Amino acid sequence: MSDFDLPQYLSERRQLVDEALERFLPAEHAPPSSVHRAMRYSVLAGGKRLRPILVIAGAEAVGGGAELVLPTACALELIHTYSLIHDDLPAMDDDDYRRGRFTNHKVFGEAIAILAGDALLTLAFNLVAGNAAQGGEARIICDVVAEIATAAGTGGMVGGQVVDIESEGKTITVETLEYIHSHKTAALIRASLRAGARLAGAKPDALRAITDTGDRLGLAFQIVDDILDVEGSLEELGKTAGSDERKRKATYPALYGLEASRARARALIQEAKLALRSLGPRGEPISALADFILERRS
Amino acid sequence: MSDFDLPQYLSERRQLVDEALERFLPAEHAPPSSVHRAMRYSVLAGGKRLRPILVIAGAEAVGGGAELVLPTACALELIHTYSLIHDDLPAMDDDDYRRGRFTNHKVFGEAIAILAGDALLTLAFNLVAGNAAQGGEARIICDVVAEIATAAGTGGMVGGQVVDIESEGKTITVETLEYIHSHKTAALIRASLRAGARLAGAKPDALRAITDTGDRLGLAFQIVDDILDVEGSLEELGKTAGSDERKRKATYPALYGLEASRARARALIQEAKLALRSLGPRGEPISALADFILERRS
Repeated sequence: MSDFDLPQYLSERRQLVDEALERFLPAEHAPPSSVHRAMRYSVLAGGKRLRPILVIAGAEAVGGGAELVLPTACALELIHTYSLIHDDLPAMDDDDYRRGRFTNHKVFGEAIAILAGDALLTLAFNLVAGNAAQGGEARIICDVVAEIATAAGTGGMVGGQVVDIESEGKTITVETLEYIHSHKTAALIRASLRAGARLAGAKPDALRAITDTGDRLGLAFQIVDDILDVEGSLEELGKTAGSDERKRKATYPALYGLEASRARARALIQEAKLALRSLGPRGEPISALADFILERRS
Repeated sequence: MSDFDLPQYLSERRQLVDEALERFLPAEHAPPSSVHRAMRYSVLAGGKRLRPILVIAGAEAVGGGAELVLPTACALELIHTYSLIHDDLPAMDDDDYRRGRFTNHKVFGEAIAILAGDALLTLAFNLVAGNAAQGGEARIICDVVAEIATAAGTGGMVGGQVVDIESEGKTITVETLEYIHSHKTAALIRASLRAGARLAGAKPDALRAITDTGDRLGLAFQIVDDILDVEGSLEELGKTAGSDERKRKATYPALYGLEASRARARALIQEAKLALRSLGPRGEPISALADFILERRS
């Protein structure tokens, strides 16, 4: 058994990320303040900071430090947040609550919410490109910009969201469900781990292990998300629980049942941890994060 | 008098850009095809391709070739198109027509229009970062990614759009009008010229001249846009003319009158051309483009 202290690790990394986000986001009073307030409202609403912590853990797994990859870590959180703001819009999922607060458009109006999302996505690429200033090889940074863009675009997150929306209220196949999962969430989670590792100069073997881990973590994360949505309550999730079912959204438990879904998530996490073995003790934080993804209650 | 053949120059460069856009955009039949169709619908709807041609002209002004900067040139067109798709949304300007066709959300629905805009913005950064593959120094490409993101974000285009929306129906000051102009349109036009020049290895003096030109071209472009909106007709513009006035939007002619607006645009174009002199004959395409911006009828 490892005596790795995950709660402390998470809390320290989360604090690093939160401080960096505060620094990288435009000041509230700087004009145009409405959109800056909207950006800060959603980004600084809390959250697990899972994607940035995966960037950091990816770097640490190959001997890099958190400071080196902080701009890119924050960029992944901005992309995640922009996607939540746009997904919550009336034209999309039409959600009123997120993380226990009103969604962005409920507070700032639809126009500002759309623009705040656009601005967060734009700022994200500014931060990744600006990672050059932290050190890091420019050629690798270009590659990481392109990889994150691919993971966030129609070959990744946006593609998953499109198919998810178009599947609402329909009976979908297993293939469609796997498409939605692997694109909507897993692509960005995998890209987070890989970005950190690449920026920290990962060798091909280590990068391959981290990629294998990232694939499985991403899928497991989405399956657990689906399970939590079925089981959850308003208090625990901070959003209307069962909302996926209410909208007849494609979920893993709906197709396979809860027990099989839990078993699949567990198996993926085991595979993820197995892939990490070659990295030795440096891979421990990712391994602990894998358990965390499986066992989280929100 | 120069015997530079602008119509031929524009037509050749536009063809290069159109062919490259066709190549860089995801295929229509590739899943998720709805969003790919929506992206192609708006990008391939025609248009002057002014921003990509400015990228190319910026490169040529310092001795670079068009091929070297084509990915970045296309990226600027994608960013421009995403901004049009989002601006046209019901929650924003609520326009039904653009370039003589239905706006994106009228054809594909609001959800897909929002996602198509998001995907174009994302793909744009993929292309700029991918410019490394064309050659070009990685460190400069990182800088160009960051500069374009700054010009497209709340310190540029998005910022201008926010203030524009918030000024609707209000009496605004000259300062606010200048803010909207310099941010909403000018920032990206200036970034286009500079991106081309930087990718082609511009020396500081040349870059300074091109920056001075870009500042003035950007402002002149927006003033002429305002004038055309007042004068234009549905046939000429392909959108509802006078729509800015109908919505009581901030325009240059509304504050200064048509004659003074024309005089200001002419003066800015003269200044832009003056700034180009130090570049010699290589600056001729930009100089001709400056005249084109002043004299265009759409």
